[in-house]
Amino acid sequence: MGMGLELNTMIVTKGKEARKEDNLFELLKDGYRLYPMHIPIEVRKTKHSDPSGYGSIEKMEWTDEKTKIMYRLISLNSTN
Amino acid sequence: MGMGLELNTMIVTKGKEARKEDNLFELLKDGYRLYPMHIPIEVRKTKHSDPSGYGSIEKMEWTDEKTKIMYRLISLNSTN
Amino acid sequence: MGMGLELNTMIVTKGKEARKEDNLFELLKDGYRLYPMHIPIEVRKTKHSDPSGYGSIEKMEWTDEKTKIMYRLISLNSTN
Amino acid sequence: MGMGLELNTMIVTKGKEARKEDNLFELLKDGYRLYPMHIPIEVRKTKHSDPSGYGSIEKMEWTDEKTKIMYRLISLNSTN
Repeated sequence: MGMGLELNTMIVTKGKEARKEDNLFELLKDGYRLYPMHIPIEVRKTKHSDPSGYGSIEKMEWTDEKTKIMYRLISLNSTN
Repeated sequence: MGMGLELNTMIVTKGKEARKEDNLFELLKDGYRLYPMHIPIEVRKTKHSDPSGYGSIEKMEWTDEKTKIMYRLISLNSTN
Repeated sequence: MGMGLELNTMIVTKGKEARKEDNLFELLKDGYRLYPMHIPIEVRKTKHSDPSGYGSIEKMEWTDEKTKIMYRLISLNSTN
Repeated sequence: MGMGLELNTMIVTKGKEARKEDNLFELLKDGYRLYPMHIPIEVRKTKHSDPSGYGSIEKMEWTDEKTKIMYRLISLNSTN
């Protein structure tokens, strides 16, 4: 038997991230997604937008066919 | 860059499981471990003991280099 | 961006395995599937049939949306 | 039981890549490593060097505690 999952190499927020404190954000995604933990990966608003910065995932939770991540924004691209 | 993890095909409790309700148990393991969700897998007390039953994982959480799972015991081997 | 894959905990042959030598078999499956390597897992003809034995995967290859595994049959259930 | 693996988000060549044709390279790494397939990921000479370009993995093979990947170099950073 098998279990479907998605290997993710960046954080795509779709503007749905919630700030928990300072630079720490929570994001809920559909399905079970596997992200690398504690490694700087790009944060983007949409799959094809420019990276808004880099984040490092500190917590990942799978339940009810959803993935909740907590990530720290470690650098921010200035856009001007 | 890379992130180490362990692919697990059974639940090895070492007697450290905590009953949360009826057939629902919580277990904390060292390191980041990937378990299949919602699939019956063997539950054993130690790696080499006989299976004590089958469990199905309903929740998995990674944080601080630890993996917490919540699993439902779906069948129990009688041993007598 | 993401990549879909399936976490597999047993080998389901559908009778499509090809014997390469003695106890070594090759099997081609659709999609990218992640199997545990070098760990005894059940070998079944169909998802819901009784296990025909245990196999240990020695090689896994992903290409063109297919997964090819080479597994050694390490035990065989007698059925009579 | 479990199987250790490493989740990789970039290709680190250490100068050991072998050109197979045009833009197609083969690289052998120690251990079992999971890379995203068919997704542009950074190619670097060392973990901390600047990316030399982007590659997309077309084939991944696990055997004998080694991972062999075939990747296509899809963009090259000019360095002058």
